[in-house]
Amino acid sequence: MTIVVQNIDRTDRAIIDGLAAAGVATVHEAQGRRGMLASYMRPIYAGAQVAGSAITISAPPGDNWMLHVAIEQLREGDILVLAPTSPCDNGYFGDLLATSAMARGCRGLVIDAGVRDIRDLTRMGFPVWSKAVSAQGTVKATLGSVNVPVVCAGAAVEAGDILVADDDGVCVVKRAEAAEVLAAAEKRLAAEEAKRSRLAAGELGLDIYDMRGTLEQKGLRYV
Amino acid sequence: MTIVVQNIDRTDRAIIDGLAAAGVATVHEAQGRRGMLASYMRPIYAGAQVAGSAITISAPPGDNWMLHVAIEQLREGDILVLAPTSPCDNGYFGDLLATSAMARGCRGLVIDAGVRDIRDLTRMGFPVWSKAVSAQGTVKATLGSVNVPVVCAGAAVEAGDILVADDDGVCVVKRAEAAEVLAAAEKRLAAEEAKRSRLAAGELGLDIYDMRGTLEQKGLRYV
Amino acid sequence: MTIVVQNIDRTDRAIIDGLAAAGVATVHEAQGRRGMLASYMRPIYAGAQVAGSAITISAPPGDNWMLHVAIEQLREGDILVLAPTSPCDNGYFGDLLATSAMARGCRGLVIDAGVRDIRDLTRMGFPVWSKAVSAQGTVKATLGSVNVPVVCAGAAVEAGDILVADDDGVCVVKRAEAAEVLAAAEKRLAAEEAKRSRLAAGELGLDIYDMRGTLEQKGLRYV
Amino acid sequence: MTIVVQNIDRTDRAIIDGLAAAGVATVHEAQGRRGMLASYMRPIYAGAQVAGSAITISAPPGDNWMLHVAIEQLREGDILVLAPTSPCDNGYFGDLLATSAMARGCRGLVIDAGVRDIRDLTRMGFPVWSKAVSAQGTVKATLGSVNVPVVCAGAAVEAGDILVADDDGVCVVKRAEAAEVLAAAEKRLAAEEAKRSRLAAGELGLDIYDMRGTLEQKGLRYV
Amino acid sequence: MTIVVQNIDRTDRAIIDGLAAAGVATVHEAQGRRGMLASYMRPIYAGAQVAGSAITISAPPGDNWMLHVAIEQLREGDILVLAPTSPCDNGYFGDLLATSAMARGCRGLVIDAGVRDIRDLTRMGFPVWSKAVSAQGTVKATLGSVNVPVVCAGAAVEAGDILVADDDGVCVVKRAEAAEVLAAAEKRLAAEEAKRSRLAAGELGLDIYDMRGTLEQKGLRYV
Amino acid sequence: MTIVVQNIDRTDRAIIDGLAAAGVATVHEAQGRRGMLASYMRPIYAGAQVAGSAITISAPPGDNWMLHVAIEQLREGDILVLAPTSPCDNGYFGDLLATSAMARGCRGLVIDAGVRDIRDLTRMGFPVWSKAVSAQGTVKATLGSVNVPVVCAGAAVEAGDILVADDDGVCVVKRAEAAEVLAAAEKRLAAEEAKRSRLAAGELGLDIYDMRGTLEQKGLRYV
Repeated sequence: MTIVVQNIDRTDRAIIDGLAAAGVATVHEAQGRRGMLASYMRPIYAGAQVAGSAITISAPPGDNWMLHVAIEQLREGDILVLAPTSPCDNGYFGDLLATSAMARGCRGLVIDAGVRDIRDLTRMGFPVWSKAVSAQGTVKATLGSVNVPVVCAGAAVEAGDILVADDDGVCVVKRAEAAEVLAAAEKRLAAEEAKRSRLAAGELGLDIYDMRGTLEQKGLRYV
Repeated sequence: MTIVVQNIDRTDRAIIDGLAAAGVATVHEAQGRRGMLASYMRPIYAGAQVAGSAITISAPPGDNWMLHVAIEQLREGDILVLAPTSPCDNGYFGDLLATSAMARGCRGLVIDAGVRDIRDLTRMGFPVWSKAVSAQGTVKATLGSVNVPVVCAGAAVEAGDILVADDDGVCVVKRAEAAEVLAAAEKRLAAEEAKRSRLAAGELGLDIYDMRGTLEQKGLRYV
Repeated sequence: MTIVVQNIDRTDRAIIDGLAAAGVATVHEAQGRRGMLASYMRPIYAGAQVAGSAITISAPPGDNWMLHVAIEQLREGDILVLAPTSPCDNGYFGDLLATSAMARGCRGLVIDAGVRDIRDLTRMGFPVWSKAVSAQGTVKATLGSVNVPVVCAGAAVEAGDILVADDDGVCVVKRAEAAEVLAAAEKRLAAEEAKRSRLAAGELGLDIYDMRGTLEQKGLRYV
Repeated sequence: MTIVVQNIDRTDRAIIDGLAAAGVATVHEAQGRRGMLASYMRPIYAGAQVAGSAITISAPPGDNWMLHVAIEQLREGDILVLAPTSPCDNGYFGDLLATSAMARGCRGLVIDAGVRDIRDLTRMGFPVWSKAVSAQGTVKATLGSVNVPVVCAGAAVEAGDILVADDDGVCVVKRAEAAEVLAAAEKRLAAEEAKRSRLAAGELGLDIYDMRGTLEQKGLRYV
Repeated sequence: MTIVVQNIDRTDRAIIDGLAAAGVATVHEAQGRRGMLASYMRPIYAGAQVAGSAITISAPPGDNWMLHVAIEQLREGDILVLAPTSPCDNGYFGDLLATSAMARGCRGLVIDAGVRDIRDLTRMGFPVWSKAVSAQGTVKATLGSVNVPVVCAGAAVEAGDILVADDDGVCVVKRAEAAEVLAAAEKRLAAEEAKRSRLAAGELGLDIYDMRGTLEQKGLRYV
Repeated sequence: MTIVVQNIDRTDRAIIDGLAAAGVATVHEAQGRRGMLASYMRPIYAGAQVAGSAITISAPPGDNWMLHVAIEQLREGDILVLAPTSPCDNGYFGDLLATSAMARGCRGLVIDAGVRDIRDLTRMGFPVWSKAVSAQGTVKATLGSVNVPVVCAGAAVEAGDILVADDDGVCVVKRAEAAEVLAAAEKRLAAEEAKRSRLAAGELGLDIYDMRGTLEQKGLRYV
């Protein structure tokens, strides 16, 4: 029941970096409006925009033992993803663990629980998206698992899936779909550029997207 | 049922700007402690302080079609106010819509739902007060209405009412009462100035407001 | 029932300042993982780190009268702690009360309710940890008590206890245990320094804390 | 600011009783899916199904004084509707007030706050829809208003509007639209009867509502 | 840090039974509107009305080990009170523990977390007031304490305090004040009886409590 | 993106019925404390205890179109499981859909959203576990999918997985593990029976489970 899966498949770094550059909203749309974690997942500081392969952690409430186990599994470019087995806002992670994770190339933490030492983490430039900020400590008494499928903040995440995170929240991309999603995202970004100019010039979405006819047909009345 | 009211009455720009300058807390007090939207309505960035005439939007959950319709109704100095017909935290609004709204003179958005692209919105200086930040996308399938009365975050808002918003939240002022509320707000600000100096000098509110007698009479005991 | 306790015992200033320097997470751990207020208590601005002796206030919902009474009881280095007698998010406190409190040496406010004028408070450098930001005003009609035991955000606080607050939240230290907790905190900080260097150098927590044996014994399997 | 509007217009009793008989879900649909109060408004016991003209109360948090004032305004067939001016879960109402309200023909209470003595109220057959059950008491110190427009649990309610409430929650019908909504509700009930028989016989909604073509056209694929 | 206090003082059984008979709302008022636990504490079935001396439990999130320890401390007429050290909705308690507690004379459980097997508990007549119903299991790995002061659902509770619980929620009475509170409660019940008759006869609270003058003086206007 | 998977694998009926008989708490423990849906999922009436193969539905917020599609996929013994693509409390399901589902042998509905007509559903004996009760209606405008993997109330569910539901909530069992989980559950039930008798006779869990030594060793002190 409590296992550590050691050799997980990861996606090509270029694809991951492309997804990071596209950002959460674009990636989410590009994969058919799927993959968002719950909106209560907020960054501890503004401005970070990252993507990485998920090292998943299933941990008991109030017990951060498995974080130490998971850190050994990190490779350059990974992101830690922790889901407690029941709702918990304890501060599972702080500056010491962040120091260790950074030393192994970790790009950030996504945790459906609490985090602490956020001033230090901000100073270190280690981004965290969490449900809570809390200094409430944890124990190291009960095992969980690493790199098993988890549900984190309402989204199913498997080890090696790509997590994309920025000021808008966190989105997960299935590993098998990463290349295709990136292509769709880049196409979308290009298309938006043209629209942005027209909108900035005062043209209306009603006209650009040719909506007036459909709206009228659906019964919209102007009074 | 799904209508767009086109010609709404607005308040004189000088009054609106006066209310913006007074700020939310003062305006709220000046109108007898009424009009606050729920405290979960938070700005996406600190420091914005605006007021504007409400263009109201009643929209289905997860459907942002009416935002395009509403933008056409905007005039310089307006604020968009969106209330979903049932609780929803989807990101109805992002940088493209903001570009369009700004091009028409819109001063901000108040939305009892989610918003996305907040880094871009911050960069553009387009302020939003929302219930959530979320990249979760919406569809354009079902109509709503524009410039009908709505309840937004617990407050009744009619098209043309004045929304005042700053770091303390959002307050609505009835259009018919705007001039009177501004007068009361300015009087209040003047009165506060004098009190502030006395309090800064170490005088106590207990003495300034002459509370000691009443407190004793009500039964307060010092032990 | 409604009393003001006037002469409370306080802790030595050096101990209080030591606790402030140690910070919330360390102090909380140093006293056996006790004393955290609920994680919904958030600072109105980032970066403040303070400690002070608690002047406690038990106030009715929507009534801030006792804040005026409490301010008279403040001495240099104190912190105001307000607990409403039932859940309330009204803005009990704003820039005028902050001016008055600062004039008496107050270091901050911890309030299980709302606060307003947060832009002014930020400018003044008066830190507040609160459940909500809200401009919703209060009345002055019903008495409460000052310097009686309260439960604030889930933690029991007595007048004279030390509140420690920073970006991670708020922690209470019993007055009688303050010296001992500070000693433990400083010991902990020293120990962490050594670990931080080793972790930064890439050593694993699994090895530093010698966890591999216990994990295996508990049944952790690597696959 | 604090007023009691005494002579409000009410709807014909037969219409009100017809709306009660139709029930909340049907009435809500019949008026174009409008008027629902928030889903956190729950009955204190199962099985009550009522409608009545609203006597509205705007009351401060934790202060139930205006309930006594409102009870004098009750007529046979009315429903009390209380909206606190800020979120509050205090028990504003218990068996004594219910005794008084029942003596004046009141059919129930809709309160966006707490209620107590629910065992007694259940025994008396006085239905209440509330946000909370709480014995936390209130004071009688600050005025509010009676029969002014309020927002209750997210819905705008004016004195004399019809409140319909059952196990599914609470819905408000504008007084001016009551007759028309009742007609639509009854038509809807009749139509549902026929559908119910066909569905019970195993026919599919896909066929009864002729949805297969549209679904295919929209792109639904069976795999 | 982890202790079991064995010999706690209890209140006379007759007083406890008197408080149970008076019920939560009356007891709460009789002690000056103090002592209510948060309104989210709800009974698993309607109709139970009990009081008992508190055996308090401070337990880690997701760990119910200390319940076994606490049960040994139970005497006839006690109530178990469990407060997790951080928010948790796990089902700490089910039918086996209830069987054990009942065998020792326990009258119920008050738990700021989850409970399970509620159909069995209902059948057994073992009442529980909890924050949640959840079958999510717990571990037995980390110690807590028994009969130490705790904060349970926002209220401070010491071992031996009296918990009163019914359909309106849960109230705590300090052991030292129990006799006095009972006397006040019984006086209150007697006074209510007279008022109830008058209200049932149609007399108004406005007249019984002689409120009209004060209301007018405060500025209430009838229009 | 919007598909209906038609031929899903189901588990043997005897295993499903065995899991229903074991109940949620036992099944959850038997599979290693996994599979619980969030504790906010509550039954609309007490006493139902069912299990069935999941027909999963991924639906947009406020749009119940796919329920009609899903009902065609039902076979005797199935349970409908609906997960909205973003948080929504609308009443997606009422008595007409229940009539249709029952006609096809459906045992119940598990929905991370709202349900309505609960009085009718109770009368019909059609059990529902939901996040909310709400009469707020939905549209039929946007497609979703049927029998794709979903996350429902925090748990990952695939079509054909077994949902077990009773008064304690809802638990999911992976189809491939169903037989093994049932065996473990039955073993657990047998073991509990013996313990129940000993506990009822007054024996302590401390002794039955031989905990005293470990507790002492961990440092528990009796004072």
